[in-house]
Amino acid sequence: MRNVTPDNITEVFQSYFSQDTDPRFREVIGCLAKHLHAFTREVGLTHDEWRKGLEALEWAGRITTPERNEFVLLSDVMGLSSLVDMINSRPGATSSSVLGPFHVSDAPPLEIGGDMRGDFEEEVLLVEGHVRDPEGNPVAGAEIDIWQTAPNGLYSSQDPDQDIMSFHGLMTADENGRYAFTTVRPVSYTVPTDGPVGDILKAAGRHPWRPSHLHFIVKAKGFRDLVTEVFPADDPYLDQDTVFGVREDLVMTYVPQPAGSFPEGFALSGKVDGPYARVDFDFTLVRD
Amino acid sequence: MRNVTPDNITEVFQSYFSQDTDPRFREVIGCLAKHLHAFTREVGLTHDEWRKGLEALEWAGRITTPERNEFVLLSDVMGLSSLVDMINSRPGATSSSVLGPFHVSDAPPLEIGGDMRGDFEEEVLLVEGHVRDPEGNPVAGAEIDIWQTAPNGLYSSQDPDQDIMSFHGLMTADENGRYAFTTVRPVSYTVPTDGPVGDILKAAGRHPWRPSHLHFIVKAKGFRDLVTEVFPADDPYLDQDTVFGVREDLVMTYVPQPAGSFPEGFALSGKVDGPYARVDFDFTLVRD
Ligand SMILES: [Cu+2]
Ligand SMILES: [Fe+3]
Ligand SMILES: [Fe+3]
Repeated sequence: MRNVTPDNITEVFQSYFSQDTDPRFREVIGCLAKHLHAFTREVGLTHDEWRKGLEALEWAGRITTPERNEFVLLSDVMGLSSLVDMINSRPGATSSSVLGPFHVSDAPPLEIGGDMRGDFEEEVLLVEGHVRDPEGNPVAGAEIDIWQTAPNGLYSSQDPDQDIMSFHGLMTADENGRYAFTTVRPVSYTVPTDGPVGDILKAAGRHPWRPSHLHFIVKAKGFRDLVTEVFPADDPYLDQDTVFGVREDLVMTYVPQPAGSFPEGFALSGKVDGPYARVDFDFTLVRD
Repeated sequence: MRNVTPDNITEVFQSYFSQDTDPRFREVIGCLAKHLHAFTREVGLTHDEWRKGLEALEWAGRITTPERNEFVLLSDVMGLSSLVDMINSRPGATSSSVLGPFHVSDAPPLEIGGDMRGDFEEEVLLVEGHVRDPEGNPVAGAEIDIWQTAPNGLYSSQDPDQDIMSFHGLMTADENGRYAFTTVRPVSYTVPTDGPVGDILKAAGRHPWRPSHLHFIVKAKGFRDLVTEVFPADDPYLDQDTVFGVREDLVMTYVPQPAGSFPEGFALSGKVDGPYARVDFDFTLVRD
């Protein structure tokens, strides 16, 4: 007879695995049990707290849809999504950061120098840079998937007033690895707070804000996919991104440009008379 | 600017709490984050594994109903439910064990000596014992809520052929703390395996069986509620209860009794001619 006690339950759990369990499965689930048991013992979790935790998961299940995944959000605000990103980042590459729920898989093609600002009136933002390998050589023909919020803080899928492809674009870098486009500044926004994650943030006294950012997925043959975000250095939420996405190398500066200096080679060339802002950001990909 | 790294993310997480966060909330959520981060780092969780974990939670959410809670089952097979039971058990009391999903809140009254076997033909099991305080004094009038599987391994709520109150009864102990009833042996059964928990058990090479048991909730004024189960010493699954519910002091013996020895004072007295089995089990309650 096996007497299960608080001290031996982790060991009993490990003993339940069969001999031929996949070693990686055993490692991951065994380690998860070990740490969850340690957590439960360390805080002396009460039945009431345990029940509240289960109710939060049930609630998350009830409101999760293909468009809104509360479990991913829970992982985000607990720092797990970012931690998984970081431990899977490769040295020498641009840091990765959270994908978030607003990526679309079929963004419209955007020419080099193309425009995503459309009819919005906000100041033009010119974004330009190169995709390189760790030795600094251009990665010709890299594919760059770009998305961001509109000036109202909403992604197109959240906003009935925007075309579903608004502020989404897919660009192919040239033979020098160069990409370039015009848009408007993305804005800070909050994660959804009407579910269990909102209750957790509230109880923790945490705000639900993310610093503004441009999302990028950069892919090239022979290189590892890079999922990342780029943040402006002056965003007020940079010090406390509620999903822990900020990395030092992902911070850039919007540099103000004088009126009359807008360059050639852009869809908006000849159409921007006033001041605008400019961001230079390069991506480094590592080989597969 | 806050640079989040795998090494400082737990510390960054803690720094997000506001000064006036409820101290217990901060302790529990902070400790949960710490152990989940440690797990993620220790196994080097991949994006693919992280995604599979989230998909398991989404699946659990989709199949959870008031009648079937896959999150509770997940907690059960991970050993968490039992660990919470154990760390909240009081020394000197009978061990607690998992409540499970089959308790009903309005079981029909059962007289002392009453019968739950009804029309089933299986051998009669006589269960008898006392409710006592830690000093051995009777707890008069203790309320004992009893439930178990039918001989087909199903609880009434799982079985359209059983009355919903079949094998559920609520007894009040007498002035000596005595309770007694007749029934049939409960049987071993499996937890549901058609959801993510089933997949986890399968991948771990674990069976989904629980050793057979009688469920009890024992309550008395001034004493702490006891939620527990009692297991027979000869059950083949006693060494590997898939929900980790077995404790040494919860194991009892079905003692075979010769034909013609059935006692007076039971609803079945005079109706049991053949052999039967008998279990003696006492409960110890501790004061609130
Ligand atoms: Cu841990
Ligand atoms: Fe975003
Ligand atoms: Fe049961």
